[in-house]
Amino acid sequence: MHTLHVELGERSYPVYIGRDLFSGQSLLARHIRGNQVAIVSNDTVAPLYVERVREALGERQLLTEIVLPDGEQYKTLASLEHILDRLLQDNHSRNTTLVAVGGGVVGDIAGFAAACYQRGVDFVQVPTTLLAQVDSSVGGKTAVNHPLGKNMIGAFHQPRAVLIDTVTLHTLPRRELAAGLAEVIKYGLICDPGFYQWLQEAMPRLLARDEAALAEAIERSCSLKAGVVAADEREGGLRAILNLGHTFGHAIETAQGYGNWLHGEAVAVGMLLALRLSVQRGWLDPAETVRLERLLHAAGLPLDVPAGMGPALFLELMARDKKVVDGRLRLVLLRAIGEACVVDDVTPAELEDLLAAAQLRRDSAPGEDRPDS
Amino acid sequence: MHTLHVELGERSYPVYIGRDLFSGQSLLARHIRGNQVAIVSNDTVAPLYVERVREALGERQLLTEIVLPDGEQYKTLASLEHILDRLLQDNHSRNTTLVAVGGGVVGDIAGFAAACYQRGVDFVQVPTTLLAQVDSSVGGKTAVNHPLGKNMIGAFHQPRAVLIDTVTLHTLPRRELAAGLAEVIKYGLICDPGFYQWLQEAMPRLLARDEAALAEAIERSCSLKAGVVAADEREGGLRAILNLGHTFGHAIETAQGYGNWLHGEAVAVGMLLALRLSVQRGWLDPAETVRLERLLHAAGLPLDVPAGMGPALFLELMARDKKVVDGRLRLVLLRAIGEACVVDDVTPAELEDLLAAAQLRRDSAPGEDRPDS
Repeated sequence: MHTLHVELGERSYPVYIGRDLFSGQSLLARHIRGNQVAIVSNDTVAPLYVERVREALGERQLLTEIVLPDGEQYKTLASLEHILDRLLQDNHSRNTTLVAVGGGVVGDIAGFAAACYQRGVDFVQVPTTLLAQVDSSVGGKTAVNHPLGKNMIGAFHQPRAVLIDTVTLHTLPRRELAAGLAEVIKYGLICDPGFYQWLQEAMPRLLARDEAALAEAIERSCSLKAGVVAADEREGGLRAILNLGHTFGHAIETAQGYGNWLHGEAVAVGMLLALRLSVQRGWLDPAETVRLERLLHAAGLPLDVPAGMGPALFLELMARDKKVVDGRLRLVLLRAIGEACVVDDVTPAELEDLLAAAQLRRDSAPGEDRPDS
Repeated sequence: MHTLHVELGERSYPVYIGRDLFSGQSLLARHIRGNQVAIVSNDTVAPLYVERVREALGERQLLTEIVLPDGEQYKTLASLEHILDRLLQDNHSRNTTLVAVGGGVVGDIAGFAAACYQRGVDFVQVPTTLLAQVDSSVGGKTAVNHPLGKNMIGAFHQPRAVLIDTVTLHTLPRRELAAGLAEVIKYGLICDPGFYQWLQEAMPRLLARDEAALAEAIERSCSLKAGVVAADEREGGLRAILNLGHTFGHAIETAQGYGNWLHGEAVAVGMLLALRLSVQRGWLDPAETVRLERLLHAAGLPLDVPAGMGPALFLELMARDKKVVDGRLRLVLLRAIGEACVVDDVTPAELEDLLAAAQLRRDSAPGEDRPDS
């Protein structure tokens, strides 16, 4: 087992990465202060892992299990309300702990429920998808979606601990594994050229679910993220680089209906667009977009924008992005592999060129690699 | 104009108290960082004050006005959602500012909307009721109610500034003025015997809306609250004393249906119950309950529990209070006037005695002083 630390003063917490974290001596129980626990999961993950988590909790005065339907389309205020209803019905007090067992959706909703139940209670993340393990479970961003934009309603609320059991990846669907790899690739692109190089070589092992390779990818990703979050918890500046590809990606997710494209799939296409824009600006060698295309393709990720999604729709949806400040869109671009920067001077004309070319590319490409085909 | 400061490091902010704060040089505009503003008010207050606030804002790129129906029964997740919908429809960005113009309900909902819109945006409090001016607008507690409990869903989110214009008290209904005085009296009881003494003398002037007396009461109340909040922002300990009478009061509000009893009215009865319990324990001279009864009566506040609200219902509702920790109810009692303490060893038998006596008292008392009669 490896242990990382997210250093945030009195809100610091450990991230444990290993196999079978819920057997034997309970790591989980150590991070629960009170006598009350609510497990939040979804109907796919609950039958696979909740029993293990329940056993690791030991005897509790009060234990509530809340199972949400699986899918990004349920990351709503309605699901949040359902959790809060259940907590109140069972008389959970302010010193209860929520334990999120599932992917990014479960972690984000449960974390936000913990942030606002009685103005804030403890929570622990037990991420069971690669995407949640390398990204959403670390850093304290919690949220639900709104029909007009992804993650628009939420809070910064750090977990008390993150427990990443690599065993959960054995049952992860192939498509979800690929979606998680998109975020892993992102860390290489924004801040670690060595890791990016390693990923090119390790991709076959990662896809074959080689435990050592997966643990290495998770550890390096979490370590890079922990460093960024420790330096800028509330995204005043640096943390924004973690959003490489996300502004384009969120527009895709919103346009396609939450849950039709996986978040990681949309981010993959978004990262390619960000790299192409960096090339358009003369910052990056065009060969880098080809290299990224190869890697994303090897991972089984899409390369093209969704059918029918033209520049106008992209621009409309991107205007609502959280990174828009006083009407100026802020985008993460690359000055080099491993060197991200945030710019706010991208013109509508630049974006239209980029997105019109992307649409054209899509319309002339063969039909594979499309989540919606 | 007087200025107080709530000292919370980088979250510190000023509280301005004076008359006509929105005329001339704009105090308000100084505390708004971006170019976008959303004013949140209710349909009673908006026609009276929103025009003034709008003028004080000066030119803005984007100005949204959101008017909620007036009343505690609208302090719900549904109202929160309405605010978030409007902000998204109008494309408010992360550097927008919400300006809450109204009483405690408006301030609490707008503050919570600001806490969770895009994971947190600025907000400014412009409280227009005495209760909001002396209590809810200062300290950063925001929330909405749940059918199973008051203020159960919320966040700690400090405003950028609080602007208390005493002119608003001229149009405040008599019953709302009295409700605000309940919280003013609370400060005397918990931490300032001199202020409590002053209130006995000043009550006729306060009720006659003497500007100097009101400004004095507001300033001393805010100053006491600012001190408590600065010492304990997130209610780890000391801040709990601000809840004198509130556990009983919340039970009354929940039982009677939100909006039927005003918050301050329920707190008045709750404070009397807390004092009687303190007398039961031998900590306080019984004459103090008579003194408080006289003061509350003079202010036009109720003295008795609602009809039909017996010990069983009280105990059931109080068990859900946010101050319950691991099954133990925490109550604020007085060791002396001006000296509050939090206890967690009150037995159900003690509470039953207290509440049965209160019910008996109510059933044998004349019908006046009852908000619900």
